[in-house]
Amino acid sequence: MRWSQAFLPVLKESPSDAQIVSHKLMLRAGLVRQTAAGIYAWLPLGFRVLKKIEQIVREEQDRAGALEMLMPTLQSADLWRESGRYDAYGPEMLRIKDRHEREILYGPTNEEMITALFRDEVKSYRDLPRTLYHIQWKFRDEVRPRFGVMRGREFLMKDAYSFDLDEAGARQSYYTQMLAYLRTFQRMGIQAVPMKAASGPIGGDLSHEFIVLAPTGESEVFYDAAYEEFDWQQSDLRYGDEAGLQGLFDRVNSTYAATDETHDEARWAELPADKQRTGRGIEVGHIFYFGEKYSAAMGLKVSGRDGSMVTPHMGSYGVGVSRLVGAIIEASHDEAGIIWPEAVAPWRVGLVTMRADDEPTVNAADALYARLQEAGVETLYDDRDERGGVKLGSMDLIGLPWQVVIGPRGIAAGTVELKRRSTGEREELSIESALARLTS
Amino acid sequence: MRWSQAFLPVLKESPSDAQIVSHKLMLRAGLVRQTAAGIYAWLPLGFRVLKKIEQIVREEQDRAGALEMLMPTLQSADLWRESGRYDAYGPEMLRIKDRHEREILYGPTNEEMITALFRDEVKSYRDLPRTLYHIQWKFRDEVRPRFGVMRGREFLMKDAYSFDLDEAGARQSYYTQMLAYLRTFQRMGIQAVPMKAASGPIGGDLSHEFIVLAPTGESEVFYDAAYEEFDWQQSDLRYGDEAGLQGLFDRVNSTYAATDETHDEARWAELPADKQRTGRGIEVGHIFYFGEKYSAAMGLKVSGRDGSMVTPHMGSYGVGVSRLVGAIIEASHDEAGIIWPEAVAPWRVGLVTMRADDEPTVNAADALYARLQEAGVETLYDDRDERGGVKLGSMDLIGLPWQVVIGPRGIAAGTVELKRRSTGEREELSIESALARLTS
Repeated sequence: MRWSQAFLPVLKESPSDAQIVSHKLMLRAGLVRQTAAGIYAWLPLGFRVLKKIEQIVREEQDRAGALEMLMPTLQSADLWRESGRYDAYGPEMLRIKDRHEREILYGPTNEEMITALFRDEVKSYRDLPRTLYHIQWKFRDEVRPRFGVMRGREFLMKDAYSFDLDEAGARQSYYTQMLAYLRTFQRMGIQAVPMKAASGPIGGDLSHEFIVLAPTGESEVFYDAAYEEFDWQQSDLRYGDEAGLQGLFDRVNSTYAATDETHDEARWAELPADKQRTGRGIEVGHIFYFGEKYSAAMGLKVSGRDGSMVTPHMGSYGVGVSRLVGAIIEASHDEAGIIWPEAVAPWRVGLVTMRADDEPTVNAADALYARLQEAGVETLYDDRDERGGVKLGSMDLIGLPWQVVIGPRGIAAGTVELKRRSTGEREELSIESALARLTS
Repeated sequence: MRWSQAFLPVLKESPSDAQIVSHKLMLRAGLVRQTAAGIYAWLPLGFRVLKKIEQIVREEQDRAGALEMLMPTLQSADLWRESGRYDAYGPEMLRIKDRHEREILYGPTNEEMITALFRDEVKSYRDLPRTLYHIQWKFRDEVRPRFGVMRGREFLMKDAYSFDLDEAGARQSYYTQMLAYLRTFQRMGIQAVPMKAASGPIGGDLSHEFIVLAPTGESEVFYDAAYEEFDWQQSDLRYGDEAGLQGLFDRVNSTYAATDETHDEARWAELPADKQRTGRGIEVGHIFYFGEKYSAAMGLKVSGRDGSMVTPHMGSYGVGVSRLVGAIIEASHDEAGIIWPEAVAPWRVGLVTMRADDEPTVNAADALYARLQEAGVETLYDDRDERGGVKLGSMDLIGLPWQVVIGPRGIAAGTVELKRRSTGEREELSIESALARLTS
């Protein structure tokens, strides 16, 4: 993408109404704009990041055997009366009347709808287990929306729902999602730690939050340094391996991690001092096992192996997809701007011409841009007629992993500058070497 | 995907509440389920088709230089008061009050929001022209939602908006989208004809509807057979070629096409009888040029080349993404079920075992499935323990382009049956030949 043809409005000043660093940077770098309280439009830069995060979530859900579908944003109030949650939910639920005065609502979550869909279609034990998921916009009418997309009202969530014949099966589904979550967050280049959680208004007795570590996080966290060593991508854990997944769960449960709300000083003290890690964190996912709560309330039954009717056990598994954009920035930025992990960067390379009026510079940049495009390297080419310093500042702000800087002096010597955003390391290289580095 | 692990609820009976064939088939084949009046959940099969259509729309928008972003579903009423449309819009607009009694609405379209975003960020002629688009759920509170996703209330739309310095520029943007639309629909394997249209409530003086031909269509259409010959993919038209795009527009405008509302008997009579085509059609896209309507009302101005302030000219360009799923089925089905064009099929190949209790059959099918997976051929493998006839019926119903049928007799002879869904042609082939055919 050529910057001169893009829609990338970066701000020189930090907006005064933003309180936290991710919100400031998302406004300054032109990722989002607020269009109503707690409601945001995603400009092209933010949209690209959102899609990359969504795609990683999708691929890991698919790998774990979850089936993608898509439920609508609006739901019937009657559906929520079946579970008893319509009256219980509180003012965070956006209640709406349509032109015929029928009561509907903007879904804050989808337990009721998926339970009803499953109930209407599935009659036999042979069609279980199943885990279904969707990635859809939700709405929660926060009394004081703030912190940008971190606590917005309209937000994008991946929510999965599992259906099993009994608790043992449901636990396997839960462990499967747990592993998928660990892999998902690690692929995004962030450190996320699972923590036992109270199950809250959704109900049930087995629940974990996934907390991304970030110095500016909303809650204090305590965890075993062992979490820094796990490599969930490369581990030999396999979906469907019951003993292996049970082992994963036992390992997570026995490796200390807690928020200030659940912190246990006695267990903490048992950990060697050099293994104690404290920090702050941001919740980006939450998984629940809640047994028969919704299936029993809504009359979901299937015929069991022996012909008797069985009430399936369910779990639900949420990831805050839009929230992750903010959380990743909280975890990865510096004074100059955002530092995107490669896996979620809107483009991999930023190409900058220092002098838009110098023909050899522009020709070399055009040629390099064409070759990067050909090689399939996602590149943002800042070809604007702006001062070089302004362009370098913009590039640091939007935080692409690699910068290639082309100026008259370098071109005279046959070189460009390659800068790695995360470390600030710079190197003078021939164009061929830079290209080889970026395409390898 | 193995059917035994999927969520593909097909119905034996045609549902009684569906009036048109696409709605019936979408329910029977398990593409969607209604969750409230005019609101649908997309089950995995329907979701896959929806995503394929969305992706074709996206790729053709990107190719035409439009920039993707994502605006929220909910909008502030104040934004619509700026254009004067809040009171004008009528009961199709879903009006909502949030917990603080602020007036919001579920967006039926996004002219106001995109104009406000553009106004707040763009100050100079140098940042024009631009076309921005998003693919997002909309809501129109139809008084009598019907015909399934064809006239639902919550629907997925691609809407693009162009900003130009003057009418000449805006016309080029319009022609660019016109070409993108012709290419988009043709890639989906359907015949769509552009027709001059009244501009309707959005306003303006240059507008075309795109009508998909289908025998069950909502309106009668009259068109020149020349439309059947155009190949928009292979044409040498290039985006950015002003004269070429003007030529395209002139050609479309001089090649007869009309709905019964705009039909001109005198012009029709000028067409040789063997070039006259009549039929029925379904609107799947609508493009508008509306000049300064929104920019003037909402105070969008940029500094022009000569320093004076200029009010940009705008256009908007919609495609009914969810509606297309129904329209394609209306255009492509038979007594037995859906016939998906290859480009939008949920899977390319359906693999069927005629006897799930015959070991050689199952082994051969498992092996072929593994090889199709390896070759990257999207395959649905019906491995269920059901009668062969039931499985063949299901496969015809869901309409994958190719069927591979494996049964005991064939396996004894070393062959499988390859069936092309669209023509019903069947061939006995060796497994190797079938594989070669499907991977070529």
